[in-house]
Amino acid sequence: MTSPYTIAVAGLGSMGLGMANSSHRANIKTYGIDVNPQQIEKFTSIGGLTGQLPNIAGELDCLFIVVVNAAQTKTIIEQSVNLMKKGSVIISCATVSPDFARQMQTLCEAHDLLYLDAPISGGSVKAAAGNITVLAAGRPDAFAKAQTALDAMAEKVFTLGDTAGPGSALKVVNQLLAGVHIAATAEAMTFGLSQGIAPQTTLDVISQCAGTSWMFENRGPHIAEGDYTPHSAVDIFVKDMGIVCDIAAEANFPAPLSATALEQFSAAAKAGHGSEDDAAVAKIYAKNGNVELP
Amino acid sequence: MTSPYTIAVAGLGSMGLGMANSSHRANIKTYGIDVNPQQIEKFTSIGGLTGQLPNIAGELDCLFIVVVNAAQTKTIIEQSVNLMKKGSVIISCATVSPDFARQMQTLCEAHDLLYLDAPISGGSVKAAAGNITVLAAGRPDAFAKAQTALDAMAEKVFTLGDTAGPGSALKVVNQLLAGVHIAATAEAMTFGLSQGIAPQTTLDVISQCAGTSWMFENRGPHIAEGDYTPHSAVDIFVKDMGIVCDIAAEANFPAPLSATALEQFSAAAKAGHGSEDDAAVAKIYAKNGNVELP
Repeated sequence: MTSPYTIAVAGLGSMGLGMANSSHRANIKTYGIDVNPQQIEKFTSIGGLTGQLPNIAGELDCLFIVVVNAAQTKTIIEQSVNLMKKGSVIISCATVSPDFARQMQTLCEAHDLLYLDAPISGGSVKAAAGNITVLAAGRPDAFAKAQTALDAMAEKVFTLGDTAGPGSALKVVNQLLAGVHIAATAEAMTFGLSQGIAPQTTLDVISQCAGTSWMFENRGPHIAEGDYTPHSAVDIFVKDMGIVCDIAAEANFPAPLSATALEQFSAAAKAGHGSEDDAAVAKIYAKNGNVELP
Repeated sequence: MTSPYTIAVAGLGSMGLGMANSSHRANIKTYGIDVNPQQIEKFTSIGGLTGQLPNIAGELDCLFIVVVNAAQTKTIIEQSVNLMKKGSVIISCATVSPDFARQMQTLCEAHDLLYLDAPISGGSVKAAAGNITVLAAGRPDAFAKAQTALDAMAEKVFTLGDTAGPGSALKVVNQLLAGVHIAATAEAMTFGLSQGIAPQTTLDVISQCAGTSWMFENRGPHIAEGDYTPHSAVDIFVKDMGIVCDIAAEANFPAPLSATALEQFSAAAKAGHGSEDDAAVAKIYAKNGNVELP
């Protein structure tokens, strides 16, 4: 009797929880792992499984790692490589550098494991619906092993290369643009206020003009409505724009807009808005420019 | 016998020529005016009329001014206010400051003329098709007088207030975002190159992710294909981001992303790319970051 296809999702934040739920809903045997018991409860309350990684690692076909950064990712990989069965796959979803991704592939392959460099995009609503986008690179065997789970979680899986690196590189490029566009949205709406234009008017008009962006249309309403309930927090972009700038610096690549956006997010975090929605970067513009937000 | 509804378009550049053509095509008696005989020839060759402004100003119901900047706009308005008939309307389409728009309204109204603060958006292709967007503010009488011509030229006319100012303010907000997004597109695609990702791959992937923008999808292909045939030139954004930064400075409003984008466009102009497509700002990133563009 063969054991059923089994996966674990390590990191049940807004993205990981949605991915675990989507997998469970597709009748895949799915473990959810997190350091926070409240997040585990959210998953087990709908019938999901949980366990300690050392106890379950040997059962897994796929281990999805959906944590905050490279350090946490590395810790989980190092805990798992000696325990997982040969030919199973580690899917790394955090935003990390391409170099880190290549190092982790080397580490996994030294233990006869497969590795997928697979950062994710789409936000919590899409994660809950099983509609994330995955920017993936890795060996065909790794894609094949992960496919059943990816089918349950993702609307779109880009196949960006047959070795680790390009997935993380394109995720970092996406974060560069996303971070600059969120800060630009804040700059434009508060600049409009300095000229007597209400943010809602800016939103209504510019969303139909060449100045629009995905982030303008997604985050603009948060500013226009003065609602900073965190969908994605300021702290995430302090981290991600920091990764962009670190990688750029290593490559001797000047990235002045990224550096400027990072300064604005860092100022927002320093002013106490780190756990608010990333659109709260507008509060720094409003303070510096002496305009009043809704 | 009443004279037919008659308009003139002063400034037959890529936008003005399309607007004059659209008006002529709608069987409106339309004069095209430009300092460049080649541009006039493009309009008269399809049956459009031309003439010297002093000779025709008295005939006009509407004078559309579609020149490069505030100084040229002011010159044309000062030439016309004593010659146009009472109750006719001057429609100012260049990107100018809200203060300038208010001054021009005051000047026109002192001569019993109407004034529409009416910057335009959409690019040359939409202008040729009669599908521009107009960001307009002014008295209801001014809108009424201009409506027949605007119907021929525009897909969408925003009515942003009953006095001059908000049209120009929102156009400047749009240019802020457009300029930052073009520079961000260049930064992202060249940064991707530094990580081994071809611009076409960046374009294909990011246009389906949260990092996309209208400008990314419109200008990105120019960079990916290495085609810098000017649709809108680097020099235009040196000018428009300069206007953004000037207005921001007057309002004591710090706009660091705009200032950074302006620096990149200025560097591109200084390096000899001023008359190339604005996507040629990527050449500055490529040079500074030592990567090779397609």
